[in-house]
Amino acid sequence: MSSAINFIRRIPEGEDRERLTCADCGFVAYENPKIVTGSVVVADGKVMLCRRAIEPRRGFWTIPAGYMEMGETIEEAARREAREEACADIAIEGMLAVYSIARIGQVQVLFRARLASPGFAAGAESLEVRLFDWDEIPWDELAFPSVHWVLHAWRDAGAGPLGAPRGNPPDDPRGVRRLGQGA
Amino acid sequence: MSSAINFIRRIPEGEDRERLTCADCGFVAYENPKIVTGSVVVADGKVMLCRRAIEPRRGFWTIPAGYMEMGETIEEAARREAREEACADIAIEGMLAVYSIARIGQVQVLFRARLASPGFAAGAESLEVRLFDWDEIPWDELAFPSVHWVLHAWRDAGAGPLGAPRGNPPDDPRGVRRLGQGA
Ligand SMILES: [Zn+2]
Ligand SMILES: [Zn+2]
Repeated sequence: MSSAINFIRRIPEGEDRERLTCADCGFVAYENPKIVTGSVVVADGKVMLCRRAIEPRRGFWTIPAGYMEMGETIEEAARREAREEACADIAIEGMLAVYSIARIGQVQVLFRARLASPGFAAGAESLEVRLFDWDEIPWDELAFPSVHWVLHAWRDAGAGPLGAPRGNPPDDPRGVRRLGQGA
Repeated sequence: MSSAINFIRRIPEGEDRERLTCADCGFVAYENPKIVTGSVVVADGKVMLCRRAIEPRRGFWTIPAGYMEMGETIEEAARREAREEACADIAIEGMLAVYSIARIGQVQVLFRARLASPGFAAGAESLEVRLFDWDEIPWDELAFPSVHWVLHAWRDAGAGPLGAPRGNPPDDPRGVRRLGQGA
């Protein structure tokens, strides 16, 4: 049943900060940052983008990415997301970037990958999946600032072995801007 | 109050896998992987280790590290952990490693850092904090396999600019071994 859930903010015993706590049973809903992982998937020099079929940002373009699940490694999660969103079987080449989005409690670990076997298609959460040349990327229709960031990180890295991963850009070092605020 | 909490595993509407759900009120306790961050803090060529005052692995040595909190960037979390566990003010130099510990649902993002101002001391969660030369590191008394891994990653990287971060070692690519199983 879905009776009202009565969460309040209070400081659990032995801790030093407020947590969301169920007033009825004492369950503490720790709000931890979540890990998003995904990939810039490259094929014939083009990058794969998925047009989102779900909110938030339905209709906008993103890389195949999503929340890591329990029991996965981070690379397994990135491969699963490519499979789910783009019906794509990818091989991860290395890490492009690690971004903190402090506004919403996310860490994004984003890889460079290639198609491990040919073919892709829109998965359940995508309206369409396409490969784009750099000059064709729909910059004004990207879903999130970090998609913009990581596409530039990929472009800047070139095609060779990857070095140190990028962090947040200097104009948003904590990941607190919303789209339309100069991201 | 702390009456019994009645969580069961069931598949929430619109999802495809079981989640821990409160049988009384329907609250879904999403079990997400958690982000641990920490640093190999280097001073005069020595590395800082903290002897844990808390379980698990009380009495064993670790780097200053812990769970990232909401509202932080990952670098802020690493600096906070050094402050809390070693009363140390650190400057992060770059990323040494990103490890997946699939057995317990962790991603560990581990940095190389130096002391930004002199001095350190045992924080509330540490019995003692010391700097160790490589040959003095208490290998048999390290708290976790990943401490072993990252100390080697630091040693292998040398003192210069950091390249691509290390991932899990080949003998535990998913992070599923326990200590004593050849970690
Ligand atoms: Zn409850
Ligand atoms: Zn409940």
